[in-house]
Amino acid sequence: MKRHFDDELKQLKDKLFRMGLLAEEAIMKATQALFERDSKKADVVLKGDQEINLCEIEIDELGHELIALYQPAAVDLRFITMVLKITNDLERMGDQAVNIAEKAVQINQEPSMKPYIDLPKMADTARGMVREALDAFMQRDADKAKQILEKDDVIDSLNDRVYDEVQKQIQEKPDLVRQGVALIMISHNLERVADLATNIAEDVIYLTRGIDVRHHIRERREDTPARS
Amino acid sequence: MKRHFDDELKQLKDKLFRMGLLAEEAIMKATQALFERDSKKADVVLKGDQEINLCEIEIDELGHELIALYQPAAVDLRFITMVLKITNDLERMGDQAVNIAEKAVQINQEPSMKPYIDLPKMADTARGMVREALDAFMQRDADKAKQILEKDDVIDSLNDRVYDEVQKQIQEKPDLVRQGVALIMISHNLERVADLATNIAEDVIYLTRGIDVRHHIRERREDTPARS
Repeated sequence: MKRHFDDELKQLKDKLFRMGLLAEEAIMKATQALFERDSKKADVVLKGDQEINLCEIEIDELGHELIALYQPAAVDLRFITMVLKITNDLERMGDQAVNIAEKAVQINQEPSMKPYIDLPKMADTARGMVREALDAFMQRDADKAKQILEKDDVIDSLNDRVYDEVQKQIQEKPDLVRQGVALIMISHNLERVADLATNIAEDVIYLTRGIDVRHHIRERREDTPARS
Repeated sequence: MKRHFDDELKQLKDKLFRMGLLAEEAIMKATQALFERDSKKADVVLKGDQEINLCEIEIDELGHELIALYQPAAVDLRFITMVLKITNDLERMGDQAVNIAEKAVQINQEPSMKPYIDLPKMADTARGMVREALDAFMQRDADKAKQILEKDDVIDSLNDRVYDEVQKQIQEKPDLVRQGVALIMISHNLERVADLATNIAEDVIYLTRGIDVRHHIRERREDTPARS
């Protein structure tokens, strides 16, 4: 019984890992579609989203089966319900990638505003956070999870800079308002991806510590923007 | 044993219902802060968010306790894991209300662009969707849930109109770019609230039918924007 449970738990983790790769790849391709002005890559993202959605359904079924069949102990139960929550987060990252892809197609139809500097940094950072959050979860590594929380601050300040920069450009060239708003939305989408990765990281800390630090972390971080 | 389970399940539902009311109220106050140019209401939202966060933790604990203690049958297990998912959605609605409140404070510091027409409609519709989604869940009423999916289309077209209208205004008065972008973000936040309510409604249809229609519904609706 125990061996079967362990086998199926491993299967659940494998599926989650694969879903994570798909989500990460979708974010990469969607942003490449923008940076390389290659709308074909955006199409790949739009078509691939269904696969991410199917992963969620599959993992959801398997997770419920595991709970119903094996009635796992508290810590394993918590691990499985977190998997269910994380698949939901990954599915939403897929949606963010779709939003980015759609905006990229729109932007690629006009001459672009300016070389992108902060957006590629945001894209790289956000994508890295997704991978690290999943690694931290799989390894139940709270220290790794804490590093992700710090990266979220990097994302927030990049996001602020993109907002400021693009708003200034719109003010100078009001005809570019549609493109500018689209870029701001992409920046917002990347910030959401980082946020979802941060949620996973907070859950990992909770899982390993067994106390609910989720909102406490969030509060503390909001209260103390300046850090040594 | 059964009676205890039913009692605790009822307690879980009551807590979820209360959390739903708090989220709905936060959205209402945050949008009133904008429409009535009353930043004090925004403060109430910012201070009240912690209570919504605490609800999530409480419900999360109780839900896990119920599963571990009573090892509920498949349909009850699914109901409880959905409660856990819904609390996560409600917590995110609270975050959207916070975002709206913050933007309202910013906007209220300048003379406002134009009387709002579509945004109040969006706010009312989104708020109604949250309440109806929770009602549909509590009553396991798939028909009620389906009506919510249709309202999401109303929200999407209102959102498009706000985007168009505000972008036009920015083009005419580029100095208003910051306020315009803030309004677009509020419209986006309301669209996200409606989206989260739609997620709940899709889950209700799944729960009552026992098959996964979630992504199918989404796909079908995206394929057929025109309906009779």
